[in-house]
Amino acid sequence: MKFVNNLYKKELKLVNHLIKDEVVNETIIQELYDHIFQNSGKQLRPLLSLIASSSDKRKNQKRIKIAAIIELLHTATLVHDDVVDESLIRRGSNTINNNWTNSHGVLMGDFIYSKAFMLMIGIADLDILNELSKATNDISKGELIQLELIGRKNITLDELKKVSYFKTGRLFEASAKCGALLANKSNKSFIKNISNFAKYLGIAFQIKDDLLDYTLDSKHIGKPILQDIKEGKITYPLFYALKEANAKDKDFLINMLGAKSGYRNKDIIKKIEHLKGLEMTECLLKNYIAKSIKFANKITDKQIREEMLNLTKFSYQRTK
Amino acid sequence: MKFVNNLYKKELKLVNHLIKDEVVNETIIQELYDHIFQNSGKQLRPLLSLIASSSDKRKNQKRIKIAAIIELLHTATLVHDDVVDESLIRRGSNTINNNWTNSHGVLMGDFIYSKAFMLMIGIADLDILNELSKATNDISKGELIQLELIGRKNITLDELKKVSYFKTGRLFEASAKCGALLANKSNKSFIKNISNFAKYLGIAFQIKDDLLDYTLDSKHIGKPILQDIKEGKITYPLFYALKEANAKDKDFLINMLGAKSGYRNKDIIKKIEHLKGLEMTECLLKNYIAKSIKFANKITDKQIREEMLNLTKFSYQRTK
Repeated sequence: MKFVNNLYKKELKLVNHLIKDEVVNETIIQELYDHIFQNSGKQLRPLLSLIASSSDKRKNQKRIKIAAIIELLHTATLVHDDVVDESLIRRGSNTINNNWTNSHGVLMGDFIYSKAFMLMIGIADLDILNELSKATNDISKGELIQLELIGRKNITLDELKKVSYFKTGRLFEASAKCGALLANKSNKSFIKNISNFAKYLGIAFQIKDDLLDYTLDSKHIGKPILQDIKEGKITYPLFYALKEANAKDKDFLINMLGAKSGYRNKDIIKKIEHLKGLEMTECLLKNYIAKSIKFANKITDKQIREEMLNLTKFSYQRTK
Repeated sequence: MKFVNNLYKKELKLVNHLIKDEVVNETIIQELYDHIFQNSGKQLRPLLSLIASSSDKRKNQKRIKIAAIIELLHTATLVHDDVVDESLIRRGSNTINNNWTNSHGVLMGDFIYSKAFMLMIGIADLDILNELSKATNDISKGELIQLELIGRKNITLDELKKVSYFKTGRLFEASAKCGALLANKSNKSFIKNISNFAKYLGIAFQIKDDLLDYTLDSKHIGKPILQDIKEGKITYPLFYALKEANAKDKDFLINMLGAKSGYRNKDIIKKIEHLKGLEMTECLLKNYIAKSIKFANKITDKQIREEMLNLTKFSYQRTK
């Protein structure tokens, strides 16, 4: 992970230790827990909170703890998402609902959620607790809105943006904000700038995710492509393509929505590309990247600013 | 509800107002939310916290809030339970997973959980936050253990008791404890006695639930009977019956486990009754009722003590 400098690599290791050291007496819970945390993802959210709180190293223990809480919250939403989306693979391993059952996914997600809340109470900071509990509620709001949009053909750009914010931007924002709150509550402008930076970074991250789902070389992204359209979800590339499509193309694309097979991936992507779906999404992505850079540049701490700009670069360029 | 005096009836109304007044901008979330809270259950958990905190009426606003938080937490677990158990009916209405989909159940449960946590932070009391977050984690632990026991034939009494405690006793205990903590943190013996009282009451409540599932007159209990055995769950009546059964009876009963049809309810219940499953469960129930009464009698506040003894009586005698 070249977007992380060595200091934060070390700290992320401590975060993972804190998460993995959890020992549960019940065999089945330990087994599910170990399975879920055997592979870590990009860990951008804990990283955001670690960087945002980096100015006060005396609080290192709490910094690691907050990062771990954020990763636990994020993981709980993933475990539930996999049930909702009937996903089979996550981070290169079978999902809980795939290896065990949907019921295991639901209950294990609850276990991890409540574990995160338990750790959170230990931080004993009401501003941080407030932000994290609100963000968690907003994430579920985003997921429910997205669920409601499935199968609907007349989605607006505003609806898509709302989902991207609630589903992804919101926890990015909370991660940076909680880090900043821990480091120095009285530095209001730093808190505001880094929160806004992270919010737009998170939305850009989601847009990039939607774009990668329409990228042919599946080796690069580590998971099957065209998941969204097969799950009946209109994301940015399809949204823009539909705007550009004539009646015949529209029919072709709408027929794809929710259809699990019957078409070659190549043909779908070619059509989306031809209708400027990828180009327009790329343009929107650049837009959000620019917004995040604007706020990053307002951060006066040089080191933090540069780390943040680094994350933006990584998020824009990543191929998985 | 003759087990509730008029004062608490009024307060429970305020609790329900607080819960129902939640307005969500998103139509689908409002719709799901209204559906879930259209009928209230017995509300024993919020009632426990209201009674436990009744000595300090100056804190009425917080008392109502804690009771609402507890009811929200409980409801979130029910919504997820219905997904896990594939239940179709709850409190006389269709479940979320029945009227909508499993995905709606998972995400709406998460929404209500996080709503409860948001309200909790507003109480700004770390002891109460600590107890509630731990209890929530224990509930999911209990559900996962129960899931793991499904289909297993060699269950022990200790395993059954552990599930009853985690699944039901734990939130009863936390409800009373949080009420008591709010009223007066320095009254350690009151906190201890009322928590223990509620813990045993909750376990007794679960045992009674298991018993009612084997009670023929389904009009009385308001939901279909023999759900547990059909879901492959061994509860107390079946556990005791299996202990008493000869090889042939054991075969008959084990064949029922997880079988959705093919046998008349009457025949199953007759067999369980004949093998003393109901009698032994009744005996265990009395045991836990006695334990709860023992702790209730240690409560020095006469009014609270009598309210608690009233709840015990109701829990023992209830027919639904």
